[in-house]
Order: sequence, then structure tokens, then C-alpha cells
Amino acid sequence: MTGRDGGAPLAPIGNAPVVILVRPQMAENIGATARAMANGGLFHLRLVAPRDGWPQDKAWRTASGADRILEAAQVFDSVAAATADLTHVFATCPRPRHVVKPVLTARGAAAELRVIAARGLASGILFGPERAGLDNDDMAAADALVRFPLNPAFMSLNLGQAVLVMAYEWWMAEDQTLPRMLATHEGKVANKAALDGFLDHLVRELDASGFLRNVEKRAGMVRNIRHYFQRGEPTEQELRTLHGIVTELVTGRGRSGAGGDKAGREKP
Amino acid sequence: MTGRDGGAPLAPIGNAPVVILVRPQMAENIGATARAMANGGLFHLRLVAPRDGWPQDKAWRTASGADRILEAAQVFDSVAAATADLTHVFATCPRPRHVVKPVLTARGAAAELRVIAARGLASGILFGPERAGLDNDDMAAADALVRFPLNPAFMSLNLGQAVLVMAYEWWMAEDQTLPRMLATHEGKVANKAALDGFLDHLVRELDASGFLRNVEKRAGMVRNIRHYFQRGEPTEQELRTLHGIVTELVTGRGRSGAGGDKAGREKP
Repeated sequence: MTGRDGGAPLAPIGNAPVVILVRPQMAENIGATARAMANGGLFHLRLVAPRDGWPQDKAWRTASGADRILEAAQVFDSVAAATADLTHVFATCPRPRHVVKPVLTARGAAAELRVIAARGLASGILFGPERAGLDNDDMAAADALVRFPLNPAFMSLNLGQAVLVMAYEWWMAEDQTLPRMLATHEGKVANKAALDGFLDHLVRELDASGFLRNVEKRAGMVRNIRHYFQRGEPTEQELRTLHGIVTELVTGRGRSGAGGDKAGREKP
Repeated sequence: MTGRDGGAPLAPIGNAPVVILVRPQMAENIGATARAMANGGLFHLRLVAPRDGWPQDKAWRTASGADRILEAAQVFDSVAAATADLTHVFATCPRPRHVVKPVLTARGAAAELRVIAARGLASGILFGPERAGLDNDDMAAADALVRFPLNPAFMSLNLGQAVLVMAYEWWMAEDQTLPRMLATHEGKVANKAALDGFLDHLVRELDASGFLRNVEKRAGMVRNIRHYFQRGEPTEQELRTLHGIVTELVTGRGRSGAGGDKAGREKP
């Protein structure tokens, strides 16, 4: 029907909210919406009265392989029809409207949508047309408005970007990735004994070289060196490399003939 | 120089990180980057060896008015030159690389960048070229990698979208918007006395109409009605409207002649 076939093997994940584009104008933005949804693990797309009809080849061109979302998209005549089987509907609303309605951040909305999904209920998020946004009747049909906190001096997201922020927050609301983690792959972070082994080696050679010849300052200097190497959270492999560096620097100095023997090492 | 002038009145906010596009290819993506930055309150843009030179009119066309960011953009020959005055550099890295390096989420990176900024230090975030991404030397020049948690079955952000997620998280890291808040504008949320006043009115009319004629069930029915109206967090204006609705329903029924007198009200 669209002349396209394939794309990423996407499928619905759990009880995720439906994305509802209300009177979308540009097919490119419908494709960008599908791409954004796929990034955030959303799948069900509904279109209310798309201006240029549906399907539209242009949508597939901007979907970046999120074809299955476009293929499964459903078209409705009205917001009422598109939300009839849902129990909770949120409406994105970039500009403040003069209505008495709960206003959620994207993050707050994502957290609530996760709770709604966990209760086994079906939810949807309305996104308005490119220029005008949702109208007053669309707003009245929603349980809450979603307004993204962004720089008030410049709030300018297109439709695909707005869906991306919402889809990203939906994904993040259950993501367990640690905010910071040292990637060591198959390597192991060295334990303190291994670190001490390296520091002993280094200090032994620094004593031999004369670097630590100031007896009064020696203990403090050794501690400072330890402070630095302590911070790097070295892996076992990295400690082996550091051992090698020390050994090679010592040996190399010997090989170069620049005072590489015992006597030479006593000078800084 | 670009034939464009104006745009939004953007300026640097605080000690925000520099966005560094490494070997960017498409000017449209440089413009989209500026737009994304402006949304998140970022301002300083650096370009390392942009493929097609700089400036490029096409960038202004996709910047959506973030012109000042483009006008202030600086061009460098190398990552080393672009980061020379920075103390902390993070590198976005969508694909896992086999390096021993801290890996941050976008949210974790934003939190750390806020701490770095509060310490008065200058930071930057590297974004790689569209196709290839950052190379191994770029990675080695960074303190940490940033990898966005997204649907592993479909991770596909273009350059502007990646910058948008990072800029959004930078903004959110200090945003104080409540996750849910009832927008009442100049209206006031009604206090309990006002709510009781309405419920008394309603129950009085329901007693008069005969709706609560079952003496055994009356107390429970009144409580259930209260449970519902309690949930809506009505404003004072909304309570006035509800009072009016009750009064008009009673009066209207009288006017219609359909049993509007006392006798009529005793039937459900």
C-alpha cells in the first residue's frame, strides 16, 4: 500500500499509551512521530482526520525504519472516536490555556502513565496539529494537560520533537540504567591489594631514583601520589600497564646510558 | 554574512556546557542543533572541521529563530583545540565502545554538568558526525561517555534529536516545575466549607426529589456522592456553577410541568 516493506521488528511493549495525532498536516511529521515513538518503546499510533489522508509515502521516508508503527496506525474522524476505548487521556499543550485543568510535566505525565498502565488501563496522549495546536474542545476531552518545562525564552519543538521528549520520558520512567557506571567490559576493577601492589612498585622505584629523597616531605608526597591513582578506579589490566610503564621507564633510562645504574638513580 | 538577522533574543545562561559538533556534515543539522540548544537554555556552539565550511545559510533555515547561537558559533580545526579551555568533556556515544570509561545516562550527565557548572568550571559535550559518530581518538579525549537509555530494539536519533535530549535533560536538571499542578489561573481552589455548602445544597434537593428515600442506604449514598465531588478539587467558581446546575435542574423541572411540585419530587 505504501510501496515500503520491512523496517525494524517493532511490536507493542506492555500496556503503553497510544499516541494520538489530532488533525496532523505534514506526513513527514507523522513519520517523525513514528520514529520518536519507536525510540521510546511506544507502538500504537492513531490519526484523527489527517489533512492529506492516510497512508502517505512521505511518512515512511522520515520514519527511519519505524515502518511497523505506521502500518499499524489507525485513522479516526474525531478525538471522541479515537479515545473511546481509553480511560485516561492527556493532551500536550505548549501554550498555557485559560482552563482549570491539571498540568503535568512530561516527566510527571510519564510517571502517571506508567501507573495507569500498571493498573491495566488504556491511556492516550493527544498531540495537536502543527500550527494551531489542540483546540478548546480537544482540551476539554483530556484529563490533564502536559506542558514540557523548557527555556521560556525559546520554546520551539516541532511535532516529532514533542513526541520524542514524551516518548523518551516514558522510556526513562522505568529505565534502570545507572546514571554513572565505569564500563570495564570483560575487565575487572582492581581491588585495593592490587592497587597497593602497584603503588609499592612505584614508590620503590621513586625511592631508588631519588624522587622521594626529601625525608620530611616523603610521607606526604607518597600520600598525594596515592590520592591521584586512587581516583582513577583502575582495572586489573590498567594496573598491569602501569606496572609495565614504571618498569620500562626505569629500564629505558638504564639503556639510554643517562645514569641508568644505581649511582645514577640516586640523582633526581 | 548569512543574509539572516534577528531571531529570538538568546544569550548565555549561567555557566552552561558548550556543545561541540565534531566534523558535522549537514548544515541543516547544525541549525537543528542550535534550535535544540535554545530549547534547553544552552548557548555556546563549537564546530570542529564542519564538512561544508561555515557559515552555511541552510543552518539558519532549520534553527527556528535560534540565530544568535549560530552567529556566536566558533569553528576549530581539532577536538583538542575546541576543548583546550574546558576542564570537563563528555562525549555522546550511541553505540557501546570497547573502552574503559565511565558511561553516563543523559540524565546522569546533566546532573554532573550542573555540579561542574556550580564549581565554576567550563564543560563541553561532544557530538559526533552524522554517520560515523565520534572516532576512538575523540573518545579518548573525553572524561566520560554519554549514552541515552532508549528502546534497544530501535535506537535511532539524528544529530538534532540527540542534542535535544541532552539539552532537555540539562534544563530539567534544575527545573522546579511541579510534576502535577491544577492550573486555576486567577481562580481559587475551594476550601472544605465551600465544598460542604454545595454538598448540603445537593443533598437537600436530592432529599426533596426523593432520590435518597431509601433510609437504610441514604448515609452510604450521601458518602459516595461526596467521594466523587471530593476528587475533582473544584475551584470556588466551579462550585458556584455546580450550585447553579442543581438550582436550575430543580427549577427547570418545575417549569417543564413534568411533576415539578412537591408531590412530583417524591418520585424518582
